[in-house]
Amino acid sequence: MLARLRSDVDLWVASADAEGDAYLVPLSFVWHGGSLVVSTPRASRTARNLLRAGWAGVALGPTRDVVIIEGPVEAIAIGEDPALEDAHANATEFDPRTLAEEYVYLRITPRSIQAWREVNELEGRWLMRKGAWLD
Amino acid sequence: MLARLRSDVDLWVASADAEGDAYLVPLSFVWHGGSLVVSTPRASRTARNLLRAGWAGVALGPTRDVVIIEGPVEAIAIGEDPALEDAHANATEFDPRTLAEEYVYLRITPRSIQAWREVNELEGRWLMRKGAWLD
Repeated sequence: MLARLRSDVDLWVASADAEGDAYLVPLSFVWHGGSLVVSTPRASRTARNLLRAGWAGVALGPTRDVVIIEGPVEAIAIGEDPALEDAHANATEFDPRTLAEEYVYLRITPRSIQAWREVNELEGRWLMRKGAWLD
Repeated sequence: MLARLRSDVDLWVASADAEGDAYLVPLSFVWHGGSLVVSTPRASRTARNLLRAGWAGVALGPTRDVVIIEGPVEAIAIGEDPALEDAHANATEFDPRTLAEEYVYLRITPRSIQAWREVNELEGRWLMRKGAWLD
């Protein structure tokens, strides 16, 4: 599981606005200091939705070998945490510090992790609940 | 694109409740009669959220070869459309008609389709907008 977090590069992020309209995008991430870190334009729907909610649900892996992670979201401005920013750039081969558009880093710290292999398994296997690893 | 809709079996569904809490799950689907059809327990978060919103955003494919489809959602009760139900069971190898728990079919008819290969392409390629194919 940790190997997966360290080696995967992309995840799916679901977010929603205050009206309950959901939005789904793929983003690159790095596993850094026990959190998932993504970066997206500060004005994007995903950033606005996640920072409004303060909570994210993300999925890694193919649909038949799924890891679903939920947890709180914090915004980190460019320049605030250079180690995190370097880790993100190295892992994703994408460096938002080089762009004119204002990006923000979003740090998602797992509070629950579920994994399952088959789509129709209704009960995923819990690897973490309420912030505690169960394995 | 149509070949992909006809051959893929799984997609990601993002949904949200009225409070703006997003939820992400993988589901099996069939492309039937110009719509995507999935099935999930009527009491599930996904069914409740999608039927509340009347609109779904779904993603197919790996994160670097993404198809994102949005469109209205209709509920179809078990027994209401046997051809659709047979098509769903054949494609997904999962037949909710055989289960004790009440399932519902959700028919998602594309109004927009975007596809892109690289995560950091900010502008996806539009294949359909407002229900009209652009290719």
